[in-house]
Amino acid sequence: MIQRLCVIGVGLIGGSLARALRDAGAVDHIVGCGRSAPNLVRAVELGVIDEYIVDPAEAVRGADMVVVATALSATPIIFEKIATAINATTVVTDVGSAKARVVEAARRSFGDDFHQFVPGHPIAGTEKSGVEASFAELFQEHRVILTPLAETNPEALNRVAAMWRLAGANVTEMDVEQHDKVLAATSHLPHMLAYALVDCLAKMDQSEDVFRYAAGGFRDFTRIASSSPEMWCDISLDNREAILTVLDSFSATYERLRHALENDNRDLLLEIFSGAKAARERAALPRSKS
Amino acid sequence: MIQRLCVIGVGLIGGSLARALRDAGAVDHIVGCGRSAPNLVRAVELGVIDEYIVDPAEAVRGADMVVVATALSATPIIFEKIATAINATTVVTDVGSAKARVVEAARRSFGDDFHQFVPGHPIAGTEKSGVEASFAELFQEHRVILTPLAETNPEALNRVAAMWRLAGANVTEMDVEQHDKVLAATSHLPHMLAYALVDCLAKMDQSEDVFRYAAGGFRDFTRIASSSPEMWCDISLDNREAILTVLDSFSATYERLRHALENDNRDLLLEIFSGAKAARERAALPRSKS
Repeated sequence: MIQRLCVIGVGLIGGSLARALRDAGAVDHIVGCGRSAPNLVRAVELGVIDEYIVDPAEAVRGADMVVVATALSATPIIFEKIATAINATTVVTDVGSAKARVVEAARRSFGDDFHQFVPGHPIAGTEKSGVEASFAELFQEHRVILTPLAETNPEALNRVAAMWRLAGANVTEMDVEQHDKVLAATSHLPHMLAYALVDCLAKMDQSEDVFRYAAGGFRDFTRIASSSPEMWCDISLDNREAILTVLDSFSATYERLRHALENDNRDLLLEIFSGAKAARERAALPRSKS
Repeated sequence: MIQRLCVIGVGLIGGSLARALRDAGAVDHIVGCGRSAPNLVRAVELGVIDEYIVDPAEAVRGADMVVVATALSATPIIFEKIATAINATTVVTDVGSAKARVVEAARRSFGDDFHQFVPGHPIAGTEKSGVEASFAELFQEHRVILTPLAETNPEALNRVAAMWRLAGANVTEMDVEQHDKVLAATSHLPHMLAYALVDCLAKMDQSEDVFRYAAGGFRDFTRIASSSPEMWCDISLDNREAILTVLDSFSATYERLRHALENDNRDLLLEIFSGAKAARERAALPRSKS
């Protein structure tokens, strides 16, 4: 049970978590914090938060749980602002899609209180953003990856894990480096490809026809290119090294496929296509939408 | 109204067209033809076709409409086999995803009867194949592109267009070269990328984790990599030149994005991401599945 929850960044993720915990009867009082006062006013109107405080240091005072759900690029600034305001019983967690730099920033800001910080990443979202888009069921049956460090207080880790379970999520743990590699491959690389594909098609001579005749597969394939460009700048720069590594692997496969096509090499094409189909089916990825 | 419809290749596309025309009361008698007798027997059992004839030349005899819905690589062989069996009132059409080589093959095989051939491409499908997967609604609200030539008999063109409209499709016309370019961009290139992505991830060290943590965006993005490898070999080799041209454009955008990331160039990343999001939204692509 959380007595006083402080959500910094009451958008899709922060707002949905607040709603889910309220619905679960898992929280007494919710304080919202953020840069946009109109958004916070709306969040109070919608019943997502009980009150809002614009100053982060003020907002976290007395909170037993602080969730930093701002843009990734704002997270280090928030850590810096709240570092002196948290006390020995405050647990701090975040929701960033890349973990190494967030952890560095937390270590730097929190110093001796770093053990109270639990890095987290809910793998959930839509292309929409803002508190208006938030809903209590967003995390149902979705994974939340926590990436505790050697110093992380096990009690703090348990409290964050319990919070996400109450919000309906499946909680797993992973180390920071592993998380950033796996996410680079499964999420960040596909986003780079989808953005590059749409950008490339938009520049073609017949781009109007191109988009007009785009079929279902194309729509699904490029849906993620409708995500927030600012958010994806943050994520891709935060996880730069891991993404560049997977881009190297991708380039190698891509060149192999291109080479097969250039040389009319049906056997090699069939090998690549069949291997991919088999791998996808072995992984038994469900067909349903996220 | 079609008196005698001959469907060569009673799979997902051919079977669904037969079902749709039957449901619309648009056909008297349906003859199925194909290499697999068990599949044809099943098609009769399911009521998709009225009878089957294994020999293509026999099967088309007396038909007023012949739909060649075999694999793209088998299409020229079928044309060769039926060329002497069609008469002056028979209209022949196909469903291939790339048109230039099909048209070449038709011109070669049909000679003086080439004007009776109407090249067609229904932009519809699922990852499944075979008559068992066929259903009458497959073409509802989907586009069918016809790519008539200068020689094409306008009456034949009208009959094929009317047939697809009765099956629920929206029929449009395009020239062969334009079709192959647009499809290379919107369908063939995304398939190449999805196959390359899944192949690349399957080869990573942590490929198990990679697939386990794959979120919804990834599933949608790679859904098309579950399509038939053989069919995609056919399509990619048939439309090789147009695909290689779009691969060149894609490589240029991809390298630009990679360069932006390597150089921590937030402005350029934001420009690419924002441009792609805007282009996708300008095109107002519906969110629904195909």
